[in-house]
Amino acid sequence: MKAHIVLAHPEKQSFNGRLTGVSEATLGTNGFEVTVSDLYRMNFDPCEAEKHYTVRSDDAVFHAQTEQRFNANNGSIPADVSQESDKLLNADVLVIHFPLWWFGAPAILKGWMDRVFIYGKVYKSQMRYDAGICRGKKMIACITTGASADSCSFDGREGDTRLVVWPLLFPFRYIGFDVLEPMILHGIGGVASIEAHEDGLSDLDRYEESWRDVLSGLDTRIVIPFNADSDFGEDKRLKPNAPSYSPFVSHQKTTLW
Amino acid sequence: MKAHIVLAHPEKQSFNGRLTGVSEATLGTNGFEVTVSDLYRMNFDPCEAEKHYTVRSDDAVFHAQTEQRFNANNGSIPADVSQESDKLLNADVLVIHFPLWWFGAPAILKGWMDRVFIYGKVYKSQMRYDAGICRGKKMIACITTGASADSCSFDGREGDTRLVVWPLLFPFRYIGFDVLEPMILHGIGGVASIEAHEDGLSDLDRYEESWRDVLSGLDTRIVIPFNADSDFGEDKRLKPNAPSYSPFVSHQKTTLW
Repeated sequence: MKAHIVLAHPEKQSFNGRLTGVSEATLGTNGFEVTVSDLYRMNFDPCEAEKHYTVRSDDAVFHAQTEQRFNANNGSIPADVSQESDKLLNADVLVIHFPLWWFGAPAILKGWMDRVFIYGKVYKSQMRYDAGICRGKKMIACITTGASADSCSFDGREGDTRLVVWPLLFPFRYIGFDVLEPMILHGIGGVASIEAHEDGLSDLDRYEESWRDVLSGLDTRIVIPFNADSDFGEDKRLKPNAPSYSPFVSHQKTTLW
Repeated sequence: MKAHIVLAHPEKQSFNGRLTGVSEATLGTNGFEVTVSDLYRMNFDPCEAEKHYTVRSDDAVFHAQTEQRFNANNGSIPADVSQESDKLLNADVLVIHFPLWWFGAPAILKGWMDRVFIYGKVYKSQMRYDAGICRGKKMIACITTGASADSCSFDGREGDTRLVVWPLLFPFRYIGFDVLEPMILHGIGGVASIEAHEDGLSDLDRYEESWRDVLSGLDTRIVIPFNADSDFGEDKRLKPNAPSYSPFVSHQKTTLW
């Protein structure tokens, strides 16, 4: 079994860096062959742009999906993207480490998705959702926040982090993964103590232990339920009797404004 | 009155590029002094990282917020970020143009937020939400999707785009903006026609007209309601009688898994 880890943090000595080390060691101990993409240390370019394509379907106008598909078919996917997409597709388990910045992924991780989830190789219209190329594989995100657990809770001032990260997790469902309940660790760099409590462990140490437990229990970790392809009609809208698992795909329009 | 426009699309000739031209012309005609940040043409670097800081609070360990605040206080904010944050703060109206990629902003735009919403200048703990530096200013996003309106609707297979973009809009509330209802234009590059209908207008032409109308009616455009600071207790959780405007900040935990 292979595990691939992606880290999106500028500082290797950060708590995200430390957790990535835990992932590498724990998954290795648990029998996985482990690879790591440390996006900052790789100097990964997150901007999908024409400069990456030496061969073009259309030299006059750059359309990302058109060039992705053309180059996938042509065997000329940009080298960095080719390597990253191979690691993604070879993994049985994918682990993503990142801090929540402005209610989203750091740009370097968002751009890893923009570029590496390449049209024609990682997905196409007949290869997504239930028919996604990563079906049968698991992914889990380990996310840190600076704000406290209270302020990130369902009634917290920062918005419910579980809902905030839904749009970040959904792309992994789109390409076929079983998306596991994410690990969300709050108060990093702030309210979470780096001083030991009476038992000799700091909050960060406790977080690390919990994360190790999660990694060793991936087989029983909750899989986020998403609708099956068959729940949607021809128009790609929920059939009347289909289940709804969240406000994001619902029978009722959610009030926002 | 000043308007600032941010474009995040790799192709100037794209529909997003065209809409940006409409924004520039329409706001200019309507009496605004207009500036544009075309992030791709500026070659904006979206990755917050130590390389941007020549002066450091801590040379050994890079912590983004620490260095942002230190450099803001020290008058040594990186030049590109300094310019962008000035444009942001000088604007009475901010318009953001981008295509929805993988249920989020293109990395170059996400990174514009990661870097330009600089701690110590654009926000700090006593300068956010109701006390945000951009209070009294308006922002509106003009977002294109490739998928159809049906599949992006509240019961659509792609998830309700209105909810999907909430985490992208919330940072603007965080720094104090009145966030207007976004313009979301579906099916670009796909189901939206580029051929003229009987009235001589294609779907894209119609979208352009609607957008022009929106720009000329900013004063009456719906402002997305968010909770006031006074709706939260000391613990930053909603007070029992406070209103809830969305599932993101709610009295009840939303089921997701």
